[in-house]
Amino acid sequence: MRVADTGEFGLIARVTARLRHGQACLLGPGDDAAVVAAPDARVAASTDVLVEGRHFRRDWSSARDVGHRAAAANLADIAAMGGVPTALLVALCAPPNLDVRWAEELSEGLAAEAARVGASIVGGDMSASPTLTIAVTALGDLGGRPPVVRSGARPGDVVAVNGRLGYAAAGYTVLSRGFRTPKLLVEAFRRPEVPYAAGPEAARLGATAMIDVSDGLLADLGHIATASGVAIDLKREAFAVPGQIRDAALALSVDPYDWILGGGDDHALAATFPADVALPAGWAVIGAVGDGAGVTVDGAPYRGAAGWDHFR
Amino acid sequence: MRVADTGEFGLIARVTARLRHGQACLLGPGDDAAVVAAPDARVAASTDVLVEGRHFRRDWSSARDVGHRAAAANLADIAAMGGVPTALLVALCAPPNLDVRWAEELSEGLAAEAARVGASIVGGDMSASPTLTIAVTALGDLGGRPPVVRSGARPGDVVAVNGRLGYAAAGYTVLSRGFRTPKLLVEAFRRPEVPYAAGPEAARLGATAMIDVSDGLLADLGHIATASGVAIDLKREAFAVPGQIRDAALALSVDPYDWILGGGDDHALAATFPADVALPAGWAVIGAVGDGAGVTVDGAPYRGAAGWDHFR
Repeated sequence: MRVADTGEFGLIARVTARLRHGQACLLGPGDDAAVVAAPDARVAASTDVLVEGRHFRRDWSSARDVGHRAAAANLADIAAMGGVPTALLVALCAPPNLDVRWAEELSEGLAAEAARVGASIVGGDMSASPTLTIAVTALGDLGGRPPVVRSGARPGDVVAVNGRLGYAAAGYTVLSRGFRTPKLLVEAFRRPEVPYAAGPEAARLGATAMIDVSDGLLADLGHIATASGVAIDLKREAFAVPGQIRDAALALSVDPYDWILGGGDDHALAATFPADVALPAGWAVIGAVGDGAGVTVDGAPYRGAAGWDHFR
Repeated sequence: MRVADTGEFGLIARVTARLRHGQACLLGPGDDAAVVAAPDARVAASTDVLVEGRHFRRDWSSARDVGHRAAAANLADIAAMGGVPTALLVALCAPPNLDVRWAEELSEGLAAEAARVGASIVGGDMSASPTLTIAVTALGDLGGRPPVVRSGARPGDVVAVNGRLGYAAAGYTVLSRGFRTPKLLVEAFRRPEVPYAAGPEAARLGATAMIDVSDGLLADLGHIATASGVAIDLKREAFAVPGQIRDAALALSVDPYDWILGGGDDHALAATFPADVALPAGWAVIGAVGDGAGVTVDGAPYRGAAGWDHFR
């Protein structure tokens, strides 16, 4: 059955029937707007859009995978402010011949990823479109803490990262060369493993700046360096190259550091902390903040892949 | 200059440089997420998506017009819950050859419409796409009141409407027949005049149910009737046919009631109230709630155009 057969309202009814409400959902789908709890009288909000052929391919990822990834990209943005996600709103633009099962499984993936952090889908919209497009808005709660912004890094801070680097980029390269294995890397591209809890943890520890790694570590630390008016220098030796990434890089003739330093989409969290903060397990110190501008590796500009611009 | 020339970050920088923050914007664009005030510890949230060729045409509407309409559709959803909009998040998917001015003027239109209610654009995302698509999420504050949902209408209530009916549909028909006048109707399609303040007003007056008219009055009252488990009967004589609509209907051989009862996109607010509520100026009583199901006009099903399904 195609979405054109169920119609807009039929499809919305089928999709919303499967949803469970999270704790913060005070009024879910089916009205003009949803109502979501915002316990500290503020709400963090972020929107990300995924376009078929640019952010995902239906022959590379299942509908559930795409749902997981679309949700993860947004939920990671809330975590990167030090927040706990509470709700998702999802706009789906679908070709009329799209199989209804695809839309249903997409929403199941979105809902399952949201459920990992106690959040749920509270609303959305659907329309026909020649281009399969998913726009997701995540809402979150800051728990009374100031948001951890990009502009707070200070010379003397350490730079630390929590989560995977290079896995999703390696998986993307594997898929783009026509392979389906190693499974670990391909799955990392399909469903990022985001360290959501590390976001609020970093905020409680006194992180001075934070970002989720979506454009690539160097590019995203570049956003922090620019916003904070500082320089960031990374230590190459701080990055162990995992065995499966090393093997895949060898097989595909890629410099594994291009994936680790240049690849996005793992949605690791990168943050700066005062040097005297004792970082718990999960955080790896990878560099330091200094005076100046830009991001360097061992004191020099990195000459590999540099990140991703969605118009180029 | 095309958006492919500025790139994603360049375009975001150009667009956000023009934005002014509303009062509720605690942290605006430029970080992983925005932070918006939610004074009563809840946030109302709604998402709408507009797809070129389906919801708008660039030869019918300027970029500013499209921005006004995209914002209005969402802000009206917040008003229809009895809320006051606080913020917009905007995802823009644009063909790489789109003129940068179009994107800038779109955001000016969005921001100008939001400013009417004191709201502002606090965040968003941009991507290249073959299909020009705009997904807007509106956030709003309920001022301590319960949300006015679709399910609260009770037999004995009156049905009232605030705002224009049929103007946008008439303008759409005018444009689709190749005409550019009457200007009043065409402009009504391009930039709806939404009675935003009537939403919180209705909530304070004790409205039992409310919806914004986006699919057409009969279709949208049908949503209330279904959600509330009631019947709604409208009085045809309660609808005066405005002169310009009557003239255009005559010229185009259309039944003007098809526009008034079946046409959406004016984003009038339709609400049900206990019969003893004294309705202020702006609200027109158009019918009554009774036992049963469905929406009738003078006791009989309406046999004209019946609303809009975005997959058909």
